[in-house]
Amino acid sequence: MDEQQKQILAIHAKHQGVLEVASQLPVTNKQQLGQAYTPGVAYISKMLAKNPELKEKYTLSGKLVALVTDGTAVLGLGDIGPTGGLPVVEGKALLYKDLAQVNAIPLAMAQVSVDEFVDTLANISGSFAGIHLEDIAAPRCFEISEKLKQRLAIPVYHDDQEGTAIVVLAGLINAAKVANKTLTSLNVVINGVGAAGVAIARLLLAVGIKNLTLMEKVGQVRPDDVRFNKYQRAVAKQSSVTTHFANLHEAMNAQDVFIGVSDADVLSADDVAQMNDDPIIFALANPKPEIAYDVVKTTKTKVFATGSSQYPNQVNNILAFPGLYQGLLKTDLKQIDLPLQAKVAAGLADLLNQPTAEKIIPSVFDEGVVAAVSAAVLEYAKEK
Amino acid sequence: MDEQQKQILAIHAKHQGVLEVASQLPVTNKQQLGQAYTPGVAYISKMLAKNPELKEKYTLSGKLVALVTDGTAVLGLGDIGPTGGLPVVEGKALLYKDLAQVNAIPLAMAQVSVDEFVDTLANISGSFAGIHLEDIAAPRCFEISEKLKQRLAIPVYHDDQEGTAIVVLAGLINAAKVANKTLTSLNVVINGVGAAGVAIARLLLAVGIKNLTLMEKVGQVRPDDVRFNKYQRAVAKQSSVTTHFANLHEAMNAQDVFIGVSDADVLSADDVAQMNDDPIIFALANPKPEIAYDVVKTTKTKVFATGSSQYPNQVNNILAFPGLYQGLLKTDLKQIDLPLQAKVAAGLADLLNQPTAEKIIPSVFDEGVVAAVSAAVLEYAKEK
Repeated sequence: MDEQQKQILAIHAKHQGVLEVASQLPVTNKQQLGQAYTPGVAYISKMLAKNPELKEKYTLSGKLVALVTDGTAVLGLGDIGPTGGLPVVEGKALLYKDLAQVNAIPLAMAQVSVDEFVDTLANISGSFAGIHLEDIAAPRCFEISEKLKQRLAIPVYHDDQEGTAIVVLAGLINAAKVANKTLTSLNVVINGVGAAGVAIARLLLAVGIKNLTLMEKVGQVRPDDVRFNKYQRAVAKQSSVTTHFANLHEAMNAQDVFIGVSDADVLSADDVAQMNDDPIIFALANPKPEIAYDVVKTTKTKVFATGSSQYPNQVNNILAFPGLYQGLLKTDLKQIDLPLQAKVAAGLADLLNQPTAEKIIPSVFDEGVVAAVSAAVLEYAKEK
Repeated sequence: MDEQQKQILAIHAKHQGVLEVASQLPVTNKQQLGQAYTPGVAYISKMLAKNPELKEKYTLSGKLVALVTDGTAVLGLGDIGPTGGLPVVEGKALLYKDLAQVNAIPLAMAQVSVDEFVDTLANISGSFAGIHLEDIAAPRCFEISEKLKQRLAIPVYHDDQEGTAIVVLAGLINAAKVANKTLTSLNVVINGVGAAGVAIARLLLAVGIKNLTLMEKVGQVRPDDVRFNKYQRAVAKQSSVTTHFANLHEAMNAQDVFIGVSDADVLSADDVAQMNDDPIIFALANPKPEIAYDVVKTTKTKVFATGSSQYPNQVNNILAFPGLYQGLLKTDLKQIDLPLQAKVAAGLADLLNQPTAEKIIPSVFDEGVVAAVSAAVLEYAKEK
């Protein structure tokens, strides 16, 4: 354990985690007790029994987001179990509060079946104003999201899906400007078609980017290839690309954009050399990108983005979720659908008046990020 | 809606409920972000994946109590559903914080089967350091408690059971002193053998009060009477009373104590007249007691306690739960067993140096209540 790790442990041990439940009403005498608890609450209880929808107004459940993981796909660590995933969801709940004044509570979910996961959350969903799923492996995450969305009357968001897709699209909008390319004409390879890859593909297709080549380790995802799950095949079916590529190297020919949500060092300088001029590379594998920064510098790459804060252009979900839920909780929106995701991405991209190759996307601590995302949600709700 | 109700609604609407999630770690720059979230938390996540028990030390889950209701038996309101029950659990979570600095989160549980209730809580139990069940109807509550206690490695507490039992025993210890009666020789009638009645009976039996007569509306609970559930019959089996009483009136003959957790006005002055000298009456039905204050005043009753704050001697669970969990969270205790309940009751009773007929039990805002209860828990843990 080095000094930095010691310090991190000390910070998280100081208060047993980084969050607490706080009172918004003092109770120091009989009168306050009667208002905060019985007999006062009996009146509210009777009212809510008749009009359950009023709970939003009079209870914590109107502003509380459940931040849930089963730890099946944590950061770069893989399946480390619900307890292993707990510090991540607690950290995100902290960011919700510190960055956007959103109340979120971390929940570790046992690694049960998809249906039991859904039933469990549904059974306690009356306690919450929204669900934020985190670090759940694909394809399980698609089924869980889909079923929860069908069943619940509150927003269901999976950060590794919608969150990543929003921030990638925001970056791509500005990268296309910098490279002087038309967004909807871009030829795009997505490498790694898991939770993030599928969600990115869905959103790019929704905004009219149809020339999508979807690559997995075992080969190209095609609509009729049964090696791939129904979610992967469904996005492949929507793509205009009909060429069959044997491998990533072949697939890179004449592409404008590479989006990697896969593994370190899978993209070579030779691969980049085959791309169209002024290529855009989003190498989002973490902690090591699909192509190293030093290698990219030797190529014709125009815009380079990664998932790391070490380099310019960090594609970071923290740009999306705090503002997204800040906005959602002020509206009646119950679905984070593709047009909403597109709207938020555009709002995030527009925050930069003059995007450059070194800055296609705001930084987490840039002023106005949360406000811009939240405003985009409110605008969408108004237009709807 | 009167002025008082308007004021209560305004108080609860001001912040959407009375609780919030609060940050214990500011995140305003890159360094703090790295400590609060990635890459810092990856180190903790890896550590917890290997040693899940360390989660207590480094995450909110080490100090957070889930306060759960399905709304099947709310206050005096009956089955008003989970949403109706929500203001009550939120109010109690507020009291935990305001009175004892304990972090609790209100959860509304759908009215599912006992097994699904248990599975649901078990699936998310890794997020919590303890469970507080609230306002769940009998006999469902017994099964749920029992199954959760068997399955989880964290304390499971049902306020309507253990909480009420603790405060009743505390009051009874001092009432016996005031009436100059020996605790273990008391002849006691418990009227109403639901969640509270069964739990009170269990605790009285555990401290050696064996002369228990258990009355339900339909008659006396006896071990071989199949009209009663197994939990009711199990406590009846432990009683030394073998006489068969046809009704409450008959049963009151030569009793020292009446404990009512039943309905308004079921006990008459004639009933009291039949009791031994200096009788003790705990008429805990709410809002109207089993025998009215004005009626009791005309009888030979020595000590009178109710569930209401309008009269002296309020038997109020708020005396128990905040300090109980404050103590539990500082120990490794995983069960709130009968000896622990007895210990806490004794600690609460001892808080009054000179109990009188008008004060057999502390008031909620008396100094030292939470500290005395918490200290009793810590002492018990040390002795164990």
